Amino acid sequence: MFTLYHHPASPFSRKARIVLGENGLDFIPVTIEPWKRDDSFMTKNPSGEIPVLQEPGGRYICGHRPVCEYISEITSRPLVGVNPLERAEVRRLCDWFDEKFFNEATVYLAGEKIYKRLNNGGAPDSDLIRAGKANVVSHLRYAEWLLKQRNWIAGENFSMADIAAAAQLSVLDYIDEVPWDKTDKDGSPLFEETKIWYARIKSRPSFRPLLNDRLGTLLPSEKYTDLDF
Amino acid sequence: MFTLYHHPASPFSRKARIVLGENGLDFIPVTIEPWKRDDSFMTKNPSGEIPVLQEPGGRYICGHRPVCEYISEITSRPLVGVNPLERAEVRRLCDWFDEKFFNEATVYLAGEKIYKRLNNGGAPDSDLIRAGKANVVSHLRYAEWLLKQRNWIAGENFSMADIAAAAQLSVLDYIDEVPWDKTDKDGSPLFEETKIWYARIKSRPSFRPLLNDRLGTLLPSEKYTDLDF
Repeated sequence: MFTLYHHPASPFSRKARIVLGENGLDFIPVTIEPWKRDDSFMTKNPSGEIPVLQEPGGRYICGHRPVCEYISEITSRPLVGVNPLERAEVRRLCDWFDEKFFNEATVYLAGEKIYKRLNNGGAPDSDLIRAGKANVVSHLRYAEWLLKQRNWIAGENFSMADIAAAAQLSVLDYIDEVPWDKTDKDGSPLFEETKIWYARIKSRPSFRPLLNDRLGTLLPSEKYTDLDF
Repeated sequence: MFTLYHHPASPFSRKARIVLGENGLDFIPVTIEPWKRDDSFMTKNPSGEIPVLQEPGGRYICGHRPVCEYISEITSRPLVGVNPLERAEVRRLCDWFDEKFFNEATVYLAGEKIYKRLNNGGAPDSDLIRAGKANVVSHLRYAEWLLKQRNWIAGENFSMADIAAAAQLSVLDYIDEVPWDKTDKDGSPLFEETKIWYARIKSRPSFRPLLNDRLGTLLPSEKYTDLDF
């Protein structure tokens, strides 16, 4: 049996949970609060970061990227693509959401509205929230542009890039910070394809456990659990 | 023939150049200044980031991680390790240097002393430089701890993790910000193993082109080109 050290508010932990779920791998979840120094956890991952996967042999696999690539390698599900060029596109878009989206949107919005609250970090900074909201829109425009040309984020097949994107968005969706129904000046929906894509992901069995996550006393938005949002 | 869009001061571009060199792959280097908005480059990589590798068929592979994994996949050199657990350790340490070292050391030191200068960004901030210097020491302690137990950063074999680490360190070495000869209170060298490791990397043919890099009017430290530093 695997053990996953994770936190429900961490998009990178969510990514690992979905990948484990997609591969039908059961695991014992252990919640870690990464903002608290925990010396026993540092012996598992010297960086202190989550997720960490303990494989049945007892070895620790540290970090979302190593964990997700590892799971892909030991299972038959080609979530990173079937040839080198396809994998390059999957990895490009994983990095897009894991790094660019995370730093430009998740850090601002979840940082101010979730992490500060869980970590007693003071009042949210409205300037940062404003910046995050604007950045989410830019990123959704890019997702929409991709999804007008493709079935899934990185191509014709469901991949790790869809998981990386959905993991970030799901954290913001918890606090109602994904403007799914935003329209342009004429009233046309801007993110129609992206919303359909997210609804497809939301209904996957691998995603369902995330919909049951609760972050302390912070309740999810109404849409969060609604498959028909 | 491959084309690599890169910048000599970018540790991630350096990583790609070493990986190409290790695999004996020739490429046409094209210098990109990532701080200047370049619309024609954005059509190659919508994130605007370097490195970007154009493969002989014309497709663009964007970002250091996709580029390096792609090169590993199309060549026979197992730079990411030979089994899933080994690859997990290589990838953990790549992320350590690509993300943690970069954000805690390179951004502060190269950011203040190189990127600001190349980009006319004003005077260096001495507080940030001080923070970067302290963080370099912490990271070198970790490298030293690893290299006391292992031949190379991620295990018994030379790997992508050595390349990721050396790429970051080489940028700081250019501005003499790697305290190779630091000693403890008793005068014992702190980073002896790390220095020997870096000397071995420095003498690899794949690393040599980096020693010829010059960043505009900013000359490298004396040690930078010296194999016996």
